Amino acid sequence: MSDTKILLNDNELPTSWYNIQADMPNLPKPPLSPFTKEEVKPEDLAAIFPPELIKQEVSQERWIEIPEEVQEIYKLWRPSPLYRARRLEKALDTPARIFFKYEGASPAGSHKLNTAVPQAYFNREGGITRLTTETGAGQWGIALSQACKFLNMICKVYMVNVSYYQKPYRRTMMNIFGSDCVPSPTNETKSGRQILEKDPDSVGSLGIAISEAVEVAAGLDDTNYALGSVLNHVCLHQSVIGQEAKMQMAKAGYYPDVVVACCGGGSNFAGIAFPFARDKIVENSPVRLLAAEPTACPTLTKGDLAYDYGDVTGLTPLLHMYTLGSEFVPPGIHSGGLRYHGESPLVSQLLHDGIIDACALTQNYIFDKAALFASSEGIIPAPESAHAIGAAVEEALDAREAGEARTILFNLSGHGHLDLPSYESYMDGKLQDLKLPEESLEKSLAGLPNIK
Amino acid sequence: MSDTKILLNDNELPTSWYNIQADMPNLPKPPLSPFTKEEVKPEDLAAIFPPELIKQEVSQERWIEIPEEVQEIYKLWRPSPLYRARRLEKALDTPARIFFKYEGASPAGSHKLNTAVPQAYFNREGGITRLTTETGAGQWGIALSQACKFLNMICKVYMVNVSYYQKPYRRTMMNIFGSDCVPSPTNETKSGRQILEKDPDSVGSLGIAISEAVEVAAGLDDTNYALGSVLNHVCLHQSVIGQEAKMQMAKAGYYPDVVVACCGGGSNFAGIAFPFARDKIVENSPVRLLAAEPTACPTLTKGDLAYDYGDVTGLTPLLHMYTLGSEFVPPGIHSGGLRYHGESPLVSQLLHDGIIDACALTQNYIFDKAALFASSEGIIPAPESAHAIGAAVEEALDAREAGEARTILFNLSGHGHLDLPSYESYMDGKLQDLKLPEESLEKSLAGLPNIK
Repeated sequence: MSDTKILLNDNELPTSWYNIQADMPNLPKPPLSPFTKEEVKPEDLAAIFPPELIKQEVSQERWIEIPEEVQEIYKLWRPSPLYRARRLEKALDTPARIFFKYEGASPAGSHKLNTAVPQAYFNREGGITRLTTETGAGQWGIALSQACKFLNMICKVYMVNVSYYQKPYRRTMMNIFGSDCVPSPTNETKSGRQILEKDPDSVGSLGIAISEAVEVAAGLDDTNYALGSVLNHVCLHQSVIGQEAKMQMAKAGYYPDVVVACCGGGSNFAGIAFPFARDKIVENSPVRLLAAEPTACPTLTKGDLAYDYGDVTGLTPLLHMYTLGSEFVPPGIHSGGLRYHGESPLVSQLLHDGIIDACALTQNYIFDKAALFASSEGIIPAPESAHAIGAAVEEALDAREAGEARTILFNLSGHGHLDLPSYESYMDGKLQDLKLPEESLEKSLAGLPNIK
Repeated sequence: MSDTKILLNDNELPTSWYNIQADMPNLPKPPLSPFTKEEVKPEDLAAIFPPELIKQEVSQERWIEIPEEVQEIYKLWRPSPLYRARRLEKALDTPARIFFKYEGASPAGSHKLNTAVPQAYFNREGGITRLTTETGAGQWGIALSQACKFLNMICKVYMVNVSYYQKPYRRTMMNIFGSDCVPSPTNETKSGRQILEKDPDSVGSLGIAISEAVEVAAGLDDTNYALGSVLNHVCLHQSVIGQEAKMQMAKAGYYPDVVVACCGGGSNFAGIAFPFARDKIVENSPVRLLAAEPTACPTLTKGDLAYDYGDVTGLTPLLHMYTLGSEFVPPGIHSGGLRYHGESPLVSQLLHDGIIDACALTQNYIFDKAALFASSEGIIPAPESAHAIGAAVEEALDAREAGEARTILFNLSGHGHLDLPSYESYMDGKLQDLKLPEESLEKSLAGLPNIK
């Protein structure tokens, strides 16, 4: 019997990030300034990002070296393990081989640390001492807090108000790493005050929190802003996941028929899928790349490919991406990390060009599969990551139907140790499959900025 | 620079447990029946334990084979990683080399799964379909729930009342794995009813919960009892930790000057220390073996070596061990897993014979060191495990004082993802270094059963 775990040693850690911009048949349309609606120039971004990250954002070099100090910090948890989910295969009675890459073993509990560390590093190299950011469920806030602690920087986190109070454990984790975490909207920013004037009881949203964090960073010389997903440099940093997974699958002696990941802003999907997308683009590999999103926030499956803002107030550049409209408010599902109206422009372009696929899953379905996975493999997944499990299970059942021993690889992007109240709701039968508010979606899509 | 992580592959998993009874200069005095005060016969234990575990309890064979099915389940998380804590070394400015074995990477979040799986397995092999147990903070309850799920058995957990309500996340985790977890004392048992009659608002204790679980198991043919620490077979199963650590230290090119673990019932200490104790006994290795306990429950440093009950009601056999007396109620520190009055008889005998050492640490001190560790290495430790960190840090500072590049190995027995409210108290300055209730301790020690 081959191994259950396929491990890599420290010296097998990738030394470069893979940049898919070098291989894409079509690049995404460029970001536009929110003020002039003209193409953003690198210098326009200098108020909130350091030079190296701006360079990475537009670079078309295929391989970008990982600085040694970042590699040393990566080694705290990377290379991450790859597992064969034999007990899940058995439970599903499928001839499929199911492998998963486990990013929840990082000290932050998710893949987010893969980009938090280089973002903090390049900011520090650029003379910045303080970072601001937003966080929804808190995974990203924890990761950036850790990264800043590792690199002796200060971190300020605007956490969506409703999550701040619903997920106090996540806030505590940020505090342990020395971050200042406040419930957004706040009175500290113009954006926050604007929202609170209209709605003093606002429970906040990612879009609002981004506005606050960007506003503060833009106004201070020693302070920059960090984003946990969507942008090209974030997808770039996450490519370590897929690069390692390719080596590990080779050691296991299999090449995946399908690679699955959940998709919110797109970075964990990009992380595992882009190195395989290269095989598909350059070598015509038949591998299928499948992004799984919630039916309650179906950016890839029901959104438009269009220019849109990343935030609510309209402070961020306009990105050309699949979007539900920046005013769309998705139902309050438990996968906070997937409740974003937009999508990585790189992922969007690849979907548009038919290089990747997408599917949408309901909340009760993914919790069912999460519980099955936990019972089989022991690991309790984050609800976000459970979308990848759900889609992988569908693939495995399909393989059973077809009687084919297909190879499935999915990315388990994080553990659910801080999401247990959501599981409690699920077990109590209190989880609803909230219907997509079609009318609000139509209105939101109709309100997209009119830019061709 | 040598590696940060020292990993072992599936095929390096130990295939036998190491039984220190084969090598001890003096064996502990035998357990006595609580009813006759005569030496317990194996058949006396048959009401609550399966034959194989009873055999292991008294076996003097050095190596006991790990069944293949147990090995396969172990491979879900074992061999566990060994890390070099370079960033902690730097933060302490010490010439010492600090290594730690990380048991928190198990899906149960602690070392407890190492014995939960074989205990469930040998019970199932013995025709048992249902296990009862007690749990304090919940780590053991989670581990046994997982093990029972893996082996298709039913699990009933009596959780100390105060923890049941203080740590709802732990209860949720048990529920995810299908366990029935109830707050103890309950009205379901004679022992529980006895307590509730005297004190209807009883917040429970481990001793009470053990009484309930043992009573139920003793009364039902299809049901046995499982204990998460203290007993010889539990220490035996945990020996995989130390066996792996020895291989990993050899790969790293170092042999430890000191091996440290926290000590409640003794099994995680036994797990990492006993394979090194063998070197000490058989080969005269100068390695120091250090058990770290809380000053609030100082079993090894202030207890008596005497016969005592394992529970409150007096249903368990009398064990010859260091004890604070079964009526001692330790202050409500956050390290629930270390709030036990007794201690493994094997660990007790080794301390008595000068083969191991013990030290006691205060609550604020260990949280200080836990926060330092988290800031350096990223991992947030369980408060119990933070005792090992605290003692390891003392050793590292001592090495700095002496200007010696000593090698320190400690066992990080679990993560603290479900202990974050305790960290919140610590950061808010609300943690007290609760004084040992000397008077209550004196009274409790004076009440020890009078058996020579």
